[in-house]
Amino acid sequence: MTEANTPCIRFDLERPKRIGLPEAVFCEGKPRRALHTLLSRFAGQPQTPILFTRLPQDVFNSFEEEITRAYDYDALSRTAWNAVMPKRTQGRAAVVSAGTADGAVAREVSRTLTYLGWTCRRFEDCGVAGLWRIQSVIEDINKADVVVVAAGLDAALASVLGGLTERPLIAVPTSVGYGVAQGGHAALSSMLSSCAPGVSVMNIDNGYGAACAAARILNAIYPAGK
Amino acid sequence: MTEANTPCIRFDLERPKRIGLPEAVFCEGKPRRALHTLLSRFAGQPQTPILFTRLPQDVFNSFEEEITRAYDYDALSRTAWNAVMPKRTQGRAAVVSAGTADGAVAREVSRTLTYLGWTCRRFEDCGVAGLWRIQSVIEDINKADVVVVAAGLDAALASVLGGLTERPLIAVPTSVGYGVAQGGHAALSSMLSSCAPGVSVMNIDNGYGAACAAARILNAIYPAGK
Amino acid sequence: MTEANTPCIRFDLERPKRIGLPEAVFCEGKPRRALHTLLSRFAGQPQTPILFTRLPQDVFNSFEEEITRAYDYDALSRTAWNAVMPKRTQGRAAVVSAGTADGAVAREVSRTLTYLGWTCRRFEDCGVAGLWRIQSVIEDINKADVVVVAAGLDAALASVLGGLTERPLIAVPTSVGYGVAQGGHAALSSMLSSCAPGVSVMNIDNGYGAACAAARILNAIYPAGK
Amino acid sequence: MTEANTPCIRFDLERPKRIGLPEAVFCEGKPRRALHTLLSRFAGQPQTPILFTRLPQDVFNSFEEEITRAYDYDALSRTAWNAVMPKRTQGRAAVVSAGTADGAVAREVSRTLTYLGWTCRRFEDCGVAGLWRIQSVIEDINKADVVVVAAGLDAALASVLGGLTERPLIAVPTSVGYGVAQGGHAALSSMLSSCAPGVSVMNIDNGYGAACAAARILNAIYPAGK
Amino acid sequence: MTEANTPCIRFDLERPKRIGLPEAVFCEGKPRRALHTLLSRFAGQPQTPILFTRLPQDVFNSFEEEITRAYDYDALSRTAWNAVMPKRTQGRAAVVSAGTADGAVAREVSRTLTYLGWTCRRFEDCGVAGLWRIQSVIEDINKADVVVVAAGLDAALASVLGGLTERPLIAVPTSVGYGVAQGGHAALSSMLSSCAPGVSVMNIDNGYGAACAAARILNAIYPAGK
Amino acid sequence: MTEANTPCIRFDLERPKRIGLPEAVFCEGKPRRALHTLLSRFAGQPQTPILFTRLPQDVFNSFEEEITRAYDYDALSRTAWNAVMPKRTQGRAAVVSAGTADGAVAREVSRTLTYLGWTCRRFEDCGVAGLWRIQSVIEDINKADVVVVAAGLDAALASVLGGLTERPLIAVPTSVGYGVAQGGHAALSSMLSSCAPGVSVMNIDNGYGAACAAARILNAIYPAGK
Amino acid sequence: MTEANTPCIRFDLERPKRIGLPEAVFCEGKPRRALHTLLSRFAGQPQTPILFTRLPQDVFNSFEEEITRAYDYDALSRTAWNAVMPKRTQGRAAVVSAGTADGAVAREVSRTLTYLGWTCRRFEDCGVAGLWRIQSVIEDINKADVVVVAAGLDAALASVLGGLTERPLIAVPTSVGYGVAQGGHAALSSMLSSCAPGVSVMNIDNGYGAACAAARILNAIYPAGK
Amino acid sequence: MTEANTPCIRFDLERPKRIGLPEAVFCEGKPRRALHTLLSRFAGQPQTPILFTRLPQDVFNSFEEEITRAYDYDALSRTAWNAVMPKRTQGRAAVVSAGTADGAVAREVSRTLTYLGWTCRRFEDCGVAGLWRIQSVIEDINKADVVVVAAGLDAALASVLGGLTERPLIAVPTSVGYGVAQGGHAALSSMLSSCAPGVSVMNIDNGYGAACAAARILNAIYPAGK
Repeated sequence: MTEANTPCIRFDLERPKRIGLPEAVFCEGKPRRALHTLLSRFAGQPQTPILFTRLPQDVFNSFEEEITRAYDYDALSRTAWNAVMPKRTQGRAAVVSAGTADGAVAREVSRTLTYLGWTCRRFEDCGVAGLWRIQSVIEDINKADVVVVAAGLDAALASVLGGLTERPLIAVPTSVGYGVAQGGHAALSSMLSSCAPGVSVMNIDNGYGAACAAARILNAIYPAGK
Repeated sequence: MTEANTPCIRFDLERPKRIGLPEAVFCEGKPRRALHTLLSRFAGQPQTPILFTRLPQDVFNSFEEEITRAYDYDALSRTAWNAVMPKRTQGRAAVVSAGTADGAVAREVSRTLTYLGWTCRRFEDCGVAGLWRIQSVIEDINKADVVVVAAGLDAALASVLGGLTERPLIAVPTSVGYGVAQGGHAALSSMLSSCAPGVSVMNIDNGYGAACAAARILNAIYPAGK
Repeated sequence: MTEANTPCIRFDLERPKRIGLPEAVFCEGKPRRALHTLLSRFAGQPQTPILFTRLPQDVFNSFEEEITRAYDYDALSRTAWNAVMPKRTQGRAAVVSAGTADGAVAREVSRTLTYLGWTCRRFEDCGVAGLWRIQSVIEDINKADVVVVAAGLDAALASVLGGLTERPLIAVPTSVGYGVAQGGHAALSSMLSSCAPGVSVMNIDNGYGAACAAARILNAIYPAGK
Repeated sequence: MTEANTPCIRFDLERPKRIGLPEAVFCEGKPRRALHTLLSRFAGQPQTPILFTRLPQDVFNSFEEEITRAYDYDALSRTAWNAVMPKRTQGRAAVVSAGTADGAVAREVSRTLTYLGWTCRRFEDCGVAGLWRIQSVIEDINKADVVVVAAGLDAALASVLGGLTERPLIAVPTSVGYGVAQGGHAALSSMLSSCAPGVSVMNIDNGYGAACAAARILNAIYPAGK
Repeated sequence: MTEANTPCIRFDLERPKRIGLPEAVFCEGKPRRALHTLLSRFAGQPQTPILFTRLPQDVFNSFEEEITRAYDYDALSRTAWNAVMPKRTQGRAAVVSAGTADGAVAREVSRTLTYLGWTCRRFEDCGVAGLWRIQSVIEDINKADVVVVAAGLDAALASVLGGLTERPLIAVPTSVGYGVAQGGHAALSSMLSSCAPGVSVMNIDNGYGAACAAARILNAIYPAGK
Repeated sequence: MTEANTPCIRFDLERPKRIGLPEAVFCEGKPRRALHTLLSRFAGQPQTPILFTRLPQDVFNSFEEEITRAYDYDALSRTAWNAVMPKRTQGRAAVVSAGTADGAVAREVSRTLTYLGWTCRRFEDCGVAGLWRIQSVIEDINKADVVVVAAGLDAALASVLGGLTERPLIAVPTSVGYGVAQGGHAALSSMLSSCAPGVSVMNIDNGYGAACAAARILNAIYPAGK
Repeated sequence: MTEANTPCIRFDLERPKRIGLPEAVFCEGKPRRALHTLLSRFAGQPQTPILFTRLPQDVFNSFEEEITRAYDYDALSRTAWNAVMPKRTQGRAAVVSAGTADGAVAREVSRTLTYLGWTCRRFEDCGVAGLWRIQSVIEDINKADVVVVAAGLDAALASVLGGLTERPLIAVPTSVGYGVAQGGHAALSSMLSSCAPGVSVMNIDNGYGAACAAARILNAIYPAGK
Repeated sequence: MTEANTPCIRFDLERPKRIGLPEAVFCEGKPRRALHTLLSRFAGQPQTPILFTRLPQDVFNSFEEEITRAYDYDALSRTAWNAVMPKRTQGRAAVVSAGTADGAVAREVSRTLTYLGWTCRRFEDCGVAGLWRIQSVIEDINKADVVVVAAGLDAALASVLGGLTERPLIAVPTSVGYGVAQGGHAALSSMLSSCAPGVSVMNIDNGYGAACAAARILNAIYPAGK
């Protein structure tokens, strides 16, 4: 058997200066060995906060305690960090989800925002089959500066919410559902076709990206003292 | 050139006895010659009511006045009949649509129900981008025995309505929209994935079929004196 | 590791008043922990009947006996209830399926109808490759008030049945098959394109939804004494 | 502008020896100039029978009378020939179609079979929404050696017929329909998924190919005196 | 022939209060008669600014001069308005496009932003096949508060731009291209899968929606004195 | 837990009389319990030959020896029979495959033909990347009465073979491949679009169906003494 | 109506230095006005050779003679140039096509190669339904340095050719065909799945791109004296 | 149980003479038994170099040491060889990849090139979210004779690279990503639609094929002494 395949990873250390967002490690598809190298490298370096996304619990737990102890790992969202970015004193995001099964994606949104230093509030179980759910919290949602909505199936919540808030609204389809909804494709099409104007959309299950899009907006409203 | 292709059409005259619905003529894809033969055959026979669907206006108008005069033709829904079925004294359908562009399909629903003898009421422009629209008419909608909803784009109206009515609810996606909504596919997926329980769905733009499904239900509630 | 993710679930207790159907718990995609919380909560409360759908047998069996004992669980349909709704004295549904492999979906239909209090009769193995099968039971099927048909592959049974019954007919494609039939997409397209008029369609494998659609119709024919 | 693009066409004159079928000219996508060259070349050569398929009527009529007079052109099937192959004394095909709109494809089947020298009988308007239609002619259909069925929409006729005949059965989906049936894709999927065993399928609208497949079978039963 | 189909249109006059954006009229799919009614109604009412999108030039030009004179119509973007919203004194959007063929969509973005009162600057022909194009203008782009990028084909510009700006970035796929790029589907998938974090996406060709999403963000940064 | 779900299976015993082919049991998707019932029922009845298809080896092996001993099981094709149909003295099929990975499907074809009583010869590894492979066996292939070709990936073998044989040719796409070939969809499209005339096609991996189609043709050439 | 939309086009004049290929103008989707500007600009500048692709004949002919006279326009390939690049003395491409209908794409390949200064030879009508066609010219094809193959339908020619030549082989699917072959998607999938190793593929109908890919290879074999 | 299914494999020993590339064994979908036979056959024959692709590590490791010891197996790329082809003294390929997750495919490219005797250099982690990555190595990349680029997600790297190199450029989409990028389909569409001219594309994850395409080009530049 040939020599080890040590991943040659070149970190984009200037990224925060260019786009206001640090690099994160997307773990899906990366060999276990590469993940080990990366987690080890940042384990004792809280001064360089780093976020790992889509890191499966069994993989994370299989590493030595020296590594896992250095990270804050969340099983539902499959995210881990060694430290978070400096806390912002202003700016708030609302993360709204339709059903319990959308919780993993919504939590990836809120975890990423927390990691980036922003405050965010979760509004769970707001599906439109019972309109009172969204109507009873809409006033609180509108107190946020930016709104992220996560929904699967028909994703009708995105359109209804788009008609109830004037905030920037970022929609994340989730891969919840079966049949034509399998993999989140019905939700994606529905959100892209929203009858409410100005709803912008992320890839299916891309909670991390939605948080970054929200952070770009929060940064625009409350610029950091660069 | 070879001999004329006279269509050999075998009418299903026993259909009303079997399924409570008369045969209709779906005109799309039928050669102009065949349509002429069929329209001529039933022109002077109001005692045998027949419905033509998807009959383009320019084709209809190209026939001799003797034929066109014998029919009630509606350009928006592209339907024509020589006579309607006996009027039912009980039973009412509500036909709800999201936007003006859904009007052609919604009208095919109401025209077909009228042809079949049932009363129906149209509720236009009820899209959920402004929830007050559907909320201001929901009480009237719920007075009907069965509800048909026609919507394109995200078709969120079907889910919202499904959470506001206990009536049998038949959803017809319309081919309104562009990009991922083109051809009505986003609306179809969304309706099939509705988070409201018990919404059943027709093929895209199939207003005729939705009316037949509604008529099957009305027949079940108010059986004809067979 | 961060704190536990207790699901915040907001039950739609007014749903029966609004739409005549109680809320159900769709288990797919929900974390095991959330299912445990939900099953525990309703275990000793037969006065609040609740239905769980898509609950895998191994997950259900992994819970403590105190919980499992409180539920009527059916492995084929993956449904569980703590109690059923009051039995209706009138109204009957027929549930027709094409092949043995469609049995799981057909059973989700009949289990849900039973839970909702309606009587239903199953007609199994009626596929059209041998027309005598459906013809030998059509008379009995027509004694029902509403008919649900579950079929995979070409789903030709839905069209044939649509030409043999005047009852409201709800078609559920099943994910039975391989190649172009994989996932039930051929059956879905076929049912939506049915040459028989007035066949309405549910999402693939959505036996629960078909039962709800049937219950909406039965409710319309035999209104409960609300 | 550069010099004329005379098509360089190399006829496969040995094809009948190899596969028992002569070459035909598929006209779709060929420039008008190329069609003119081809039609001219064979206009006065009845001893070399040739078939043109998918030749639009307006294109054909635009050529000089000297050419058009030399061909037997059929507008419905858009086929033309200068002469037919020697008539076979034995062997018969049945061509069954579901609705009037399937007539163009069914006619391409029968025209091609006629061109190839085989006898064929058409059975029109046999759609399964009224089962009596196919049942009233099944005995006659079974007198043929091979059966071709053309249907669009749900194409349920192919499955039903597959359960009623022991003959080799070739199914041609037609591009009749709209929504999910648009372009014949629902019919194609349905035929490929037929619950009746041994139904083989052609590309959508490929009546010419279906006739060739039938001719291969007829050739196998009644070999020509090569 | 039956009575005229006057569209019953219910304007959402409270929409600006709810979501900060006025209603607009999407013209595609609406019958010519309905468009005439709508354009007439607002022709003499500059105090009620209204925007028409996807209004084809030949339809617009076919109306009487009394109507057309009252509107500012732009043929490339197919937009018309009777008046614009009050001009905002702060806030700027950049609209970047890849090629000349993306110009129609980019112009729908800039026209809609102009209508909504926001300043916007166009950056044309920035496709990444020549990286110097985007690099030579990136500094100016970064002076805007929000960036919209319109691109078809591979839409690689969205990802490259996402790595060069920290501004909120809204990506609109355009239906430019053929083969797998036809209808903008390659561009849509590419943008949704962007390797740059926080790029949010609109439906194909939805320049109007992108402008609304940008306006939501500009509103959040520079709130109007409501 | 509720009572056992004994499958109600209604055998189509008249099928051979109607269509010349006995019923077979498609095992995929059927619960293990149902398969056990079926295998038990026919275990000791060689006078009623029955074929099981898509029966996984681990499921088969899990049954008691009393059952497994009664069947001829083949792991590659996942088929089992208790006995074969009477051997036909005339008629021969050729089964041609492109690569080793197509072997499972090709073997389902040959096993089914053997079960039905027909003689068949396998031609393996004939892929067109080396044309000499098919050319070196074409003479032997042409000695058969009917030819079945199984291929995945680009399925070019079907077209090449279609130009080299005058026999009836049935093409089965196999689910061999990855990327755009995944699941056999590239092969299916390619076979349906074959440039060789008269190639008819089965669903992906449907070796059983291809054998039945071949048997229909063999039956037509060499009719059984019914 | 607002001011004229003069396209702001920024030519990539350094492109030849970077990638060895000059910029070309893709005309599809560009407004007529923009095409006029571009054609005018280069009309009298043979010292700056430029290629226009996908320029429809009716658009080209609609311009003033002063412009059209300055270009060499080819209607079949819809290409135009004002002058060609310096002729290369070495290096030859072979362009092979399957049927007459693939001629437009094949001609776009040869026209682009001619424009770029390379010699190329066309091999028409080589479809594999008659293998002798490709076999009779393969020796000549192998005299070229690089081979481009254009085919629609099943595109089996690409695989067969891939097994007969050791030259770099670039495959272009053409949008020839109907049903599953419509738009060239079957050909694209087939070529990407080719069982012959090392066949690389272009987008459907992208003859221009195939020529550029061939030119990159020819440049690598016979480097220009830069 | 019936007799063993020994695979009948017919090696294409003349392939190198015809196309300059030896046959390789694609292991996916081949039964374990067949792989064992093949690996055994070539284990002690370094004079006949052979390459196995898509050979899973657990399958390889399950064979007896006598076999595994004879092969150079690489787990990341799942390739094995018993010996490599004679080393070429001239010619170099560059293999560029976007992210760590694309490493498996990129390594299949480099392993195959090594097996074929060509020198190749890997450039890892060059994704365009940080343009400096590709810009810092482009000079070195341009020293190669041919370039292969492997990327998933939006595959924007292929287009950017296409605008920065004049070398023949072969793009391999990788199945890295989720949602619309799942299975590599977004990357494939993006690469086929590349705005940079002359980028040719392989099937998703087809690193082996990309290496063969590169080898065809290298062979053309530096012909072996045949």
